[in-house]
Amino acid sequence: MTGHEYDVDTAVELLGDHPAGGRRYAATVTDRWSALGGGANGGYLLGICVRALRDEVARHADGHPDPLVVSAFFLRRGVAGPAELHAEAVRVGRRIATAEARLTQAGKETVRVVANFADLGAASGRTEMFAEAPKLPAPEDCVDATGGLSIPGLTIADRFEYRFAEPPGWSRGAPSGSPRMEFWARFKDGREPDTLCLPSIVDAAAPAVVELGEYASSTIELTTHLRARPAPGWLACRVRTSYLIDGYHEEDFEVWDSKGALVAQGRQLALLP
Amino acid sequence: MTGHEYDVDTAVELLGDHPAGGRRYAATVTDRWSALGGGANGGYLLGICVRALRDEVARHADGHPDPLVVSAFFLRRGVAGPAELHAEAVRVGRRIATAEARLTQAGKETVRVVANFADLGAASGRTEMFAEAPKLPAPEDCVDATGGLSIPGLTIADRFEYRFAEPPGWSRGAPSGSPRMEFWARFKDGREPDTLCLPSIVDAAAPAVVELGEYASSTIELTTHLRARPAPGWLACRVRTSYLIDGYHEEDFEVWDSKGALVAQGRQLALLP
Repeated sequence: MTGHEYDVDTAVELLGDHPAGGRRYAATVTDRWSALGGGANGGYLLGICVRALRDEVARHADGHPDPLVVSAFFLRRGVAGPAELHAEAVRVGRRIATAEARLTQAGKETVRVVANFADLGAASGRTEMFAEAPKLPAPEDCVDATGGLSIPGLTIADRFEYRFAEPPGWSRGAPSGSPRMEFWARFKDGREPDTLCLPSIVDAAAPAVVELGEYASSTIELTTHLRARPAPGWLACRVRTSYLIDGYHEEDFEVWDSKGALVAQGRQLALLP
Repeated sequence: MTGHEYDVDTAVELLGDHPAGGRRYAATVTDRWSALGGGANGGYLLGICVRALRDEVARHADGHPDPLVVSAFFLRRGVAGPAELHAEAVRVGRRIATAEARLTQAGKETVRVVANFADLGAASGRTEMFAEAPKLPAPEDCVDATGGLSIPGLTIADRFEYRFAEPPGWSRGAPSGSPRMEFWARFKDGREPDTLCLPSIVDAAAPAVVELGEYASSTIELTTHLRARPAPGWLACRVRTSYLIDGYHEEDFEVWDSKGALVAQGRQLALLP
């Protein structure tokens, strides 16, 4: 791990065995990844869980370095301060290992995560693509439409850089009415993407419903499929909500790397306030 | 519950408290929902888990009759025979209750499920739809393209009826090369749809990759979002795979009811053999 913000702020420290099985870890939720309203961003909390899960899997077997599917249920609002995790392997197979983590703050469970790990570098098999990467101008030809926006409490916006082909409607106070966006994203401090951080990336940007004039939405559950290890550089993101029903909406998030490979698909169910 | 096959075959019996918290249930996995190769269909096993989960949630509070998000990790092949479940409430909130279930056969965990429950009948809030229901002819004007196919061991095919606008390529031995299908579906014995069975429905039909000439695929993880309670009658289904990468593929499955309402979205990650 590096000294980059994301790695520092998702670090976990092994405390020892958990009486119910698995292990206990300590972590510190920082105030550098806060969402609108001041609570910790769910994807950031998930990043802490992924670190503990990978550690737990590695204690049982080598050969499962990459998250494959990560499903997180958000139970309570996370806040800056100490957290404890309980991570336990569920099944460690030859190809796929499964583990569960519970992140607790002040004795109350905040996030529950079940995840699979595998070796995406060793995956081989048939490949057929039926949709393409976002068609965006090169990042240097795009606009930094949201970098100048300063929204009190929204510290996670300071951790990432975004580039749009043109300023999105919501950034100009004129939501388009169509909840879909494509843009480039990267960590502002130069941390390169990997499979560990992608479950955070799919929850880091403004939700697609900002184009409906909705500026907050609470993630209930988020599942990420990791599809390949990302190449260094900018990530091309495509986010879309198709159905907002009685305040509940899904959000689909695709991440493509700088070489044009699909690296992650996220889907969440969220609820408008 | 009724005497319909699905309800009989997903029934759970309370055994008592579990020493680790929550409760123990017994179930019988029948051979009436087997997939190609003879193992129990994952969506069917999931249906058993949903029954135990709903029972567990109802023990803590009223007012959460409908699954909202159901995420299942398939760990081992399920087989006809006895099963035991451990279901435990994670958090029971006013609006949303979360619980976890583990289905075990012969002492080995087969499926792990985390699910939220809520009252979809009480949901209210903004509604905006950005895509439409499948445009299919009325079921009576569609063809029963797969009802005559008899595939040894594939007993789940006898539990459902399907209707297509025209016979799909794979059913004629001529896969189209485009992994997407739309069709009507219902239980053959007349059981009407509800939110409990929808997580099974999204995994019951032939996978979209049959249109790529692939006749088997193992579900690794399946998440279902329940979006509304279905009206009685046929369900209009839309299934699609967009990315097959190194043998892994996602599958998106939408279910719309006979009145044209979206009732469920499923997404799974699966692996070709």
